[in-house]
Amino acid sequence: MANDWVIDRRDSSEESKGMNNRVIVLGGDGFCGWPTSLYLSRQGYDITIVDNLSRRCIDNELGASSLTPIASVDRRLTKWKELTGKKIEFVHIDVSVNYQRLLDLIKDKKPKAIVHFAEQRAAPYSMKSPSHKIYTVDNNLNATHNMLCAIVESGLDIAVVHLGTMGVYGYGAAGTEIPEGYLDVKVDVDGEHKDLKIMYPASPGSIYHMTKTQDALFFLFYAKNDGVRITDLHQGIVWGTNTEETCMHEDLINRFDYDGDYGTVLNRFLMQSVVDHPITVHGKGGQTRAFIHIRDTVRCIELAIKHPPQKGDQVKIFNQTTETHRVIDLAKLVAKETGARIRYYINPRNEAPVNELKVRNESFLALGLQPTTLENGLLKEVIDVAKKYKDNCNLSKIVCTSRWRSDIPEDLEGSSEPE
Amino acid sequence: MANDWVIDRRDSSEESKGMNNRVIVLGGDGFCGWPTSLYLSRQGYDITIVDNLSRRCIDNELGASSLTPIASVDRRLTKWKELTGKKIEFVHIDVSVNYQRLLDLIKDKKPKAIVHFAEQRAAPYSMKSPSHKIYTVDNNLNATHNMLCAIVESGLDIAVVHLGTMGVYGYGAAGTEIPEGYLDVKVDVDGEHKDLKIMYPASPGSIYHMTKTQDALFFLFYAKNDGVRITDLHQGIVWGTNTEETCMHEDLINRFDYDGDYGTVLNRFLMQSVVDHPITVHGKGGQTRAFIHIRDTVRCIELAIKHPPQKGDQVKIFNQTTETHRVIDLAKLVAKETGARIRYYINPRNEAPVNELKVRNESFLALGLQPTTLENGLLKEVIDVAKKYKDNCNLSKIVCTSRWRSDIPEDLEGSSEPE
Repeated sequence: MANDWVIDRRDSSEESKGMNNRVIVLGGDGFCGWPTSLYLSRQGYDITIVDNLSRRCIDNELGASSLTPIASVDRRLTKWKELTGKKIEFVHIDVSVNYQRLLDLIKDKKPKAIVHFAEQRAAPYSMKSPSHKIYTVDNNLNATHNMLCAIVESGLDIAVVHLGTMGVYGYGAAGTEIPEGYLDVKVDVDGEHKDLKIMYPASPGSIYHMTKTQDALFFLFYAKNDGVRITDLHQGIVWGTNTEETCMHEDLINRFDYDGDYGTVLNRFLMQSVVDHPITVHGKGGQTRAFIHIRDTVRCIELAIKHPPQKGDQVKIFNQTTETHRVIDLAKLVAKETGARIRYYINPRNEAPVNELKVRNESFLALGLQPTTLENGLLKEVIDVAKKYKDNCNLSKIVCTSRWRSDIPEDLEGSSEPE
Repeated sequence: MANDWVIDRRDSSEESKGMNNRVIVLGGDGFCGWPTSLYLSRQGYDITIVDNLSRRCIDNELGASSLTPIASVDRRLTKWKELTGKKIEFVHIDVSVNYQRLLDLIKDKKPKAIVHFAEQRAAPYSMKSPSHKIYTVDNNLNATHNMLCAIVESGLDIAVVHLGTMGVYGYGAAGTEIPEGYLDVKVDVDGEHKDLKIMYPASPGSIYHMTKTQDALFFLFYAKNDGVRITDLHQGIVWGTNTEETCMHEDLINRFDYDGDYGTVLNRFLMQSVVDHPITVHGKGGQTRAFIHIRDTVRCIELAIKHPPQKGDQVKIFNQTTETHRVIDLAKLVAKETGARIRYYINPRNEAPVNELKVRNESFLALGLQPTTLENGLLKEVIDVAKKYKDNCNLSKIVCTSRWRSDIPEDLEGSSEPE
């Protein structure tokens, strides 16, 4: 794009600002945030977790807790200190609401980076009702904006690492292999073709995904106007539950969501096989999705912290995903491994029944990521976790109840169709 | 774009829904909302104004009221009824906060259209301080989303007309004549060029403009997922102050902002000439801007109400502007007409010092709009209004005090440079 901004390239070397090795993890008690916090702590970063514990509250609302018995934050951190000698701080702030406390914390801690997981992250939950739509919009947008605004007000040069989603691309609307954030196009200017690099056209598939496309515009603006150094990670669907660190003791165990709102597709299928529930395929399962194992998520976050953009650069966008699969193929894989039965449900989402998806992910590979793919034998680990804790499962919460539109039948079981 | 959504093209004929001629105007007490409400009322629409009166509160905050003495809402509406026999309703709701009251009103009134002006609309105000940034984001995004969510929950087929801004285009980043919302590009797919129509790449110039680019993503999603029929008007800078209707009595007069936050460039220059203040040119005045007279704004709104998109269509985007001018040329025009002196100030904005701007606006012209340009003699009308009420001017509020970044000098008078 034409550079219609005046960028201030002030010195951003860490020494000149008296920076330390502190990283603030917003949403550090959640499914991705918690294993990331432990991993970064083990790598030698000083970690401050900021969380409003909303995910635990939503467990109460939905009546479907994590399958794994997650310990209180206090117990988690005490055990971590006991096992590793490393202290992780916890500060209870709702960053979507309490700007001043967030600002004070940032000024006090002077972190080198802030990792931002503090958003409502389930598409079905975001479509559940008008109040869930409103909550997701209000929470996610204000959380992201408060963080950016506080960084600018602090005057500190803090790198931002944000968890986004592959879903912002709308599963390949341009028909190309999906690039990492930016698309090369040609535009006709006075009869001549001019080359432009544009942000990949957004095509959100739910209220949740929409907020992530709106986050991208916050990042665009704050990078350009204020020189904030931002990395936006377009993450695939996470599978797996534990990392080396969360395996160290049951008090450190990560959450495992199996319900129709928060459970992610592969984990759900594996868990369903354990409790003798049919595998819940939406539509005919023609959807192709991008995936990443939770062990790779935490490594990617550290790589992003280590390789931030320079002041004045555009937003750095990585596709944080290691492989793509069609949903029906995953269902068949799980059925073959476990003997579970596949059942076809009406798709509660408003989406194409079949899509192709090719994704570029060179950036993380170039930085040394060794992908943990489905073939690495970790499916069994998920099954073992599910087996161990299956008595915690509320069977009535397995089938999705959210619907994208009111004209989609409430009972998704209506269309069970054998293949 | 590839159609990756399943669009529901249900019958949207007005008769089938028992619709009436009611239009709800969100923000109907403001600078554009008020004359629009009167104009639509006179054209025979039944008008319900919804407003939280925030603009009047901000007058108090800034210590710079409208130059024209605006009457209370009650007095305005009483006088309108007296003069025309037409009743305009007023409901005091903050639509960014009170979703339920908005929903109840929509269900009760069953309007054929909602016109949405209920956003904080000044770029300098949005950049004034962290709390102004946060207010603008929170207010604008929640207001737009609450409206869309309530329309869907109501189950009614209501057309939306939203006041956007030319500023979302970032003054021509693609180098082309600016199209109406969508840009034709070619993308390389497996060695072949594929034609795509994409939303024009957003390039917001302030927090305020950013919220309008984020609004566009709300519209994209709700049009696709729920079939909401939306027209987004990318409006140029409004000049002029009165319309035929607001001229009918002083109790109906429209606001006239002259201060550094809310005053728009041409109106400010004209008013400055009246109070013997130098004309405040930012930088060297090389910025080219798009303009529209307030009398055309109100006509455009009615045209948009009369020609909504069909259910299932993409968002209809019109460039609501009639001419473009370079700021320095306007300053010289006003100086020539009035004898005022030009003074150059440090530009508080972060923008290119010079830009070209060519804008396409065929859509409104095709619908019959007869542009009211600078040549139509209405400059004098603005000067007359300014002269009549110049004693209401707080001279200390004329120079802009907002700055886009903290490294821009607080005193913008530092760089006065004669040409």
